[in-house]
Amino acid sequence: MLQAIPEDSVGTPISDKNSLSIDNVIFIGNKPTMNYVLAIVTQFQNGQSEVVVRGRGKAISRAVDAVEVALHKFLPQVEKQQITTSTEEIESEDGVIRVSVIEIVLTYQTDAKI
Amino acid sequence: MLQAIPEDSVGTPISDKNSLSIDNVIFIGNKPTMNYVLAIVTQFQNGQSEVVVRGRGKAISRAVDAVEVALHKFLPQVEKQQITTSTEEIESEDGVIRVSVIEIVLTYQTDAKI
Repeated sequence: MLQAIPEDSVGTPISDKNSLSIDNVIFIGNKPTMNYVLAIVTQFQNGQSEVVVRGRGKAISRAVDAVEVALHKFLPQVEKQQITTSTEEIESEDGVIRVSVIEIVLTYQTDAKI
Repeated sequence: MLQAIPEDSVGTPISDKNSLSIDNVIFIGNKPTMNYVLAIVTQFQNGQSEVVVRGRGKAISRAVDAVEVALHKFLPQVEKQQITTSTEEIESEDGVIRVSVIEIVLTYQTDAKI
């Protein structure tokens, strides 16, 4: 059975625990959704044209929430380019644990579509 | 802020509370993930070529889990055709509540790809 594991408790390459993102990837953990909404908005405000939002286990719901709020309230020019789900295997003391992952690729639309 | 609301507590068209699906749509609620895995597998065993898995709020994580387990363990010939997320507005006593939704379209691949 898949289990819920907070993203940054299992050895992801997050060296700074206060950092929510590496380059253009935002890892969704257990903080309030609005923290991740702001992280997404900030990335685009800093000039990123593509941002990847990544959530694992129970954080998958929060990842979707953060994307939906960010796009509806703050980023009308950003679109969901691609949504993928997968299964990741993590080695733990009890053996291999399987956990579901979602990745949502967001892109800034520079050209008006009218 | 988006809120988590169990799918069948807010007036979805599920007349029979014991039923997890309508036609080929499987609504993910608060039951154990394996219930939904079995619901997905059963739909395809009954001859459906396309099944839609739909989860709302915190059930989004469970929807992804159910799909990942079903495809990896039981349905090697089924593929994720499309994954979409959206925001649904629900009227409640406290006004309009927004909730995130995920829909995963699964299709049975009849032709071998080799």
